[in-house]
Amino acid sequence: MKRVGLLTGGGDAPALNAVIRGAVVRLARDRVATVGILEGWRGMLEKLSRDLAAADVAGTVGEGGTILGSSRTNPYKNPERDLPRIVANYQALGLDALIAVGGDDTLGVAAKLHKDGALQVVGVPKTIDNDLAGTDYTFGFFTAVEIAMRAMDDLVSTAKSHRRVLVVECMGRHAGWITGYAGLAAGADYVLVPEEPIDVEGLCRSLLARRKQGRLYNIVAVAEGAEFGEEHVTQVAEKDEFGHLRLGGIGEMLAKVITKKTGLESRHVVLGHLQRAGAPTAYDRVLGTRYGVFAAEMVLSGQFGKMAALQGNELKAVPLAEATGETKVLSKEFIQLMKLFYA
Amino acid sequence: MKRVGLLTGGGDAPALNAVIRGAVVRLARDRVATVGILEGWRGMLEKLSRDLAAADVAGTVGEGGTILGSSRTNPYKNPERDLPRIVANYQALGLDALIAVGGDDTLGVAAKLHKDGALQVVGVPKTIDNDLAGTDYTFGFFTAVEIAMRAMDDLVSTAKSHRRVLVVECMGRHAGWITGYAGLAAGADYVLVPEEPIDVEGLCRSLLARRKQGRLYNIVAVAEGAEFGEEHVTQVAEKDEFGHLRLGGIGEMLAKVITKKTGLESRHVVLGHLQRAGAPTAYDRVLGTRYGVFAAEMVLSGQFGKMAALQGNELKAVPLAEATGETKVLSKEFIQLMKLFYA
Amino acid sequence: MKRVGLLTGGGDAPALNAVIRGAVVRLARDRVATVGILEGWRGMLEKLSRDLAAADVAGTVGEGGTILGSSRTNPYKNPERDLPRIVANYQALGLDALIAVGGDDTLGVAAKLHKDGALQVVGVPKTIDNDLAGTDYTFGFFTAVEIAMRAMDDLVSTAKSHRRVLVVECMGRHAGWITGYAGLAAGADYVLVPEEPIDVEGLCRSLLARRKQGRLYNIVAVAEGAEFGEEHVTQVAEKDEFGHLRLGGIGEMLAKVITKKTGLESRHVVLGHLQRAGAPTAYDRVLGTRYGVFAAEMVLSGQFGKMAALQGNELKAVPLAEATGETKVLSKEFIQLMKLFYA
Amino acid sequence: MKRVGLLTGGGDAPALNAVIRGAVVRLARDRVATVGILEGWRGMLEKLSRDLAAADVAGTVGEGGTILGSSRTNPYKNPERDLPRIVANYQALGLDALIAVGGDDTLGVAAKLHKDGALQVVGVPKTIDNDLAGTDYTFGFFTAVEIAMRAMDDLVSTAKSHRRVLVVECMGRHAGWITGYAGLAAGADYVLVPEEPIDVEGLCRSLLARRKQGRLYNIVAVAEGAEFGEEHVTQVAEKDEFGHLRLGGIGEMLAKVITKKTGLESRHVVLGHLQRAGAPTAYDRVLGTRYGVFAAEMVLSGQFGKMAALQGNELKAVPLAEATGETKVLSKEFIQLMKLFYA
Repeated sequence: MKRVGLLTGGGDAPALNAVIRGAVVRLARDRVATVGILEGWRGMLEKLSRDLAAADVAGTVGEGGTILGSSRTNPYKNPERDLPRIVANYQALGLDALIAVGGDDTLGVAAKLHKDGALQVVGVPKTIDNDLAGTDYTFGFFTAVEIAMRAMDDLVSTAKSHRRVLVVECMGRHAGWITGYAGLAAGADYVLVPEEPIDVEGLCRSLLARRKQGRLYNIVAVAEGAEFGEEHVTQVAEKDEFGHLRLGGIGEMLAKVITKKTGLESRHVVLGHLQRAGAPTAYDRVLGTRYGVFAAEMVLSGQFGKMAALQGNELKAVPLAEATGETKVLSKEFIQLMKLFYA
Repeated sequence: MKRVGLLTGGGDAPALNAVIRGAVVRLARDRVATVGILEGWRGMLEKLSRDLAAADVAGTVGEGGTILGSSRTNPYKNPERDLPRIVANYQALGLDALIAVGGDDTLGVAAKLHKDGALQVVGVPKTIDNDLAGTDYTFGFFTAVEIAMRAMDDLVSTAKSHRRVLVVECMGRHAGWITGYAGLAAGADYVLVPEEPIDVEGLCRSLLARRKQGRLYNIVAVAEGAEFGEEHVTQVAEKDEFGHLRLGGIGEMLAKVITKKTGLESRHVVLGHLQRAGAPTAYDRVLGTRYGVFAAEMVLSGQFGKMAALQGNELKAVPLAEATGETKVLSKEFIQLMKLFYA
Repeated sequence: MKRVGLLTGGGDAPALNAVIRGAVVRLARDRVATVGILEGWRGMLEKLSRDLAAADVAGTVGEGGTILGSSRTNPYKNPERDLPRIVANYQALGLDALIAVGGDDTLGVAAKLHKDGALQVVGVPKTIDNDLAGTDYTFGFFTAVEIAMRAMDDLVSTAKSHRRVLVVECMGRHAGWITGYAGLAAGADYVLVPEEPIDVEGLCRSLLARRKQGRLYNIVAVAEGAEFGEEHVTQVAEKDEFGHLRLGGIGEMLAKVITKKTGLESRHVVLGHLQRAGAPTAYDRVLGTRYGVFAAEMVLSGQFGKMAALQGNELKAVPLAEATGETKVLSKEFIQLMKLFYA
Repeated sequence: MKRVGLLTGGGDAPALNAVIRGAVVRLARDRVATVGILEGWRGMLEKLSRDLAAADVAGTVGEGGTILGSSRTNPYKNPERDLPRIVANYQALGLDALIAVGGDDTLGVAAKLHKDGALQVVGVPKTIDNDLAGTDYTFGFFTAVEIAMRAMDDLVSTAKSHRRVLVVECMGRHAGWITGYAGLAAGADYVLVPEEPIDVEGLCRSLLARRKQGRLYNIVAVAEGAEFGEEHVTQVAEKDEFGHLRLGGIGEMLAKVITKKTGLESRHVVLGHLQRAGAPTAYDRVLGTRYGVFAAEMVLSGQFGKMAALQGNELKAVPLAEATGETKVLSKEFIQLMKLFYA
């Protein structure tokens, strides 16, 4: 084992640089060189790389994003053309193994390349949404939660000044991890996640009940993937200046529904890219470091075709396929915990 | 002078509570009581109030929003009904004067009430947008700039990871104060303000020029009120799921234009209510305190029909009418300064 | 079960209010009232209390400290006088059980009161230092780490400008949890914890080696409880203006040793109370909420004489005595992980 | 005018990089090259430099400290040896002028070099303490105030939990700018600055009065340069483990005095280097940018022997000597304003 490639694919997540640093430093300890592959699988296709010594990653652990760049390039979209190029570049770069850090897509490619016997691959699960199966928490998730929670904290003063409902739309197409954790942590009045259909009546009843108790404002956390029935959609759609039906995102629609049903002045905010912006939290930097070091040790001990997975406090090597199955959603216990505070 | 009313109207701004504290404490020093009027002019109409002693405002200076609440109620919409109620409540509350903290609308009402001889009024200019004439800087403005700038700072890492253009839409319907100051402070690649029509070609040329110099990403700051010509609007409008034309905000449209014209992957963020969320900066707390204390002194020295205005480092009493004239836009000098960094 | 007392004792920790909220809301769900005991055991001695309904704890989850106040009062210092008073007040307040949130001391008192059969007690472990045995992580710990890490992050620019070594003294008298986690997360050049004697030669060698690699500055994280041998103490002690020997804290002494041995300009910062200041992180608010809810459920199911403990991802009820044994120090694995980045 | 040197001397201040960026970009606009001199006057003595093109300063505006490094080297300590070296290096580097950014010392050297006719120098005043005469506000000052204020904000929760007095020691040896502004902005209970001797009795009376009004804690802001009389010093000095008298900093001593005189539990925090750590605020980045651009324009228009000075909202060129006279202390008006809130 002399040279190990390392790539980061898919949407960036806070603490990717902690993973990179962890792997580089751990491999260097065993005198193994790390070759940083640029922009995810695109870098493998186009042989874009830079050597990464320990000094190159010093001072990077606190930076958001990934110093290697990322992309959504997927070589299995055109495998006949692309797979041979990847294998050729793997050899041209003199790689003995590859650490692929990424989500569903990236790890899926890694799993196939391993299965095809083309490359010696180790995976590190990455998703800010924490919805990857096989691992308890992904790095970057708690940073996103922190950002969403601080936004809700900060919005209280303006909501209160205007006696408003503020709907905060958080990331999470398929699972409510960020929304649920941030909503719970910020003391939101109501939390809506993709795991359950939106109960408009229950929501409005709950907001009004709070007002009766003397609360002058409400914060509602909603995941971008939360859904309500067709009947509400047509209720809240607006005509634009050309007289056409206009639909907004879920946060915008929800604010309109709430205003219509309760009479409470409502506004919305879409956090969007802010949730993956800025410096990672300490929790994520430590976790990312551990993932990176562990992945390096998996390479050094020859555990290929597997990925690092957090289970309780321990990192373990599990088959890559485990991550690429179904979406990991919020547990019933957590949903019950959330509801304790607003139902 | 025994009892002075104090109300905050219009959109809330960071450091309103510093103004309130400043006025209350200064009046108390001269043994004058402050009566907090709740929810702007609505409180005067409906006689909603709470007494404010110095102890009531201790510990509030760092809170965003206004402890008195606010509203956009304007008694001059129905003056025959509402003005007599205001005068009656002013008397019923035993007020000798009223400090009205607010923007165009609130100060306009104050000016009319003063002109009508109905009330003894002193104004304090308030707008997060800093576009009120007659005063150099309003409190709350630099906090909004700070928030917008930090968002741009934080978005760099994700923009860079994906080699993207990130368009950050800031407040400012009529003037580019927040956008211009935040864009300059964050080192944005381009800044678009309502003061000048959007030069799409110049923008795209500039972004591509930066990329040629090796920059892997771009940040573009745009004010919500910046405008481009009809030809671009139809270019970027999208069909929604019902086949209808769909127009987004300026940030969304701009990201689409940029992608179309440059091929650079672009995304947008709308900061919205986040810009008035959270704790005020030190600058604004000190400034707000000074405004509040000065307004109290204007009351004590009988300078009614005027408002406190910052001119250089000094607060002065200027006629209320000065604030309610035309919008104060960015100076040519500042626009030139901005352009130094991207043209 | 109708009325449950709740107290918080010892040094305050971020997310105490999340614990309180969790317990109050969970008990209220089963129509059990919570009586907040003020200022730790002092409140039990002096019958200081306030009722806590769900509405009382709404909006408190994001506040640092404890809305109940705390103290270091220990009734076992004078048990003959104080124990009967506690029992009497427990009865006078109509309590059926007591949730005691605190560290070594508070839980020790709780354990004895339970053993004596005087009260029905459930414990929740609390220490910002994370050195309590029986539980993996205490709430508040990661907030302290976050604060210490951000301080180190922020100090880089001034250290670099002056080519300095900056020594950051963190909390931790008996264990290096905060220092180790923050140092790892901030990419500190060296980390010194109470678990191992300070290796001055190794430290200085390591800092100089970094400089040779081109690094212009160094950050050193040191726990207040880290120790070096007598020979270094006398080396670094200074004469004060009266000609007397003057010893500072470990951070101050370390900065002097480093300057003497390496010639590198060194400065120090003592974070002190800042580490327990400010709003808790999302991680801690969620964890605190879970501790509070779980403690309430322990009360409801009659698991007295025990405390809530985090083991992996699960909360479990363990004997109170487990927490009050020996200090939980950093594991060998973690120390090895830390050293990977500076040895 | 073809090549202009630029150096930053003395203690680093937030927004130095905004000054550098401003000057570099403005000079480049007129096709004048900037030569960055490293580590203050040391760089002129040892000919340490790097060319600075606009691309080199892109992305630096948000970084604390100075990308050029700084030092306290003063060539007038050994002028016979050092001045000829500076002149020789000025010529060797092909400089037509030099922009010196610094405090008392740096500008003093600049003034002398100008007077000696050795160099064409323009100055930019820099001090985080804002105590330089001739200019209203220096860049970096409001960032330091922000940091000190946030610390005080954050310390409230722990102070309140323990019913404590928290003494926060801020920078300011000769003037109370940071302490006064931060204390006012944070709503501190008492503020002690070098401009006036410490009134121990008044302080303690005021703290106790607040407690009587129901306040459970106090925050006291004290400048490191505030002083109390000899009688208090001996009262609060402690014996160390060797039996010798031990004096701490003013914050530590003050906490002890307060405890002795009031019985209130008191603690202290020394903010120290944290006050110049981290990213500059928007206000300072805009101000620093303006200073840098203005200094470049002074060079381009040949206004040597002067420095840029903020007066009201305007930057003006004033003689270098103006800055190097007496310390600018807090005005009587500001001290009166401060006292309004605690006397």
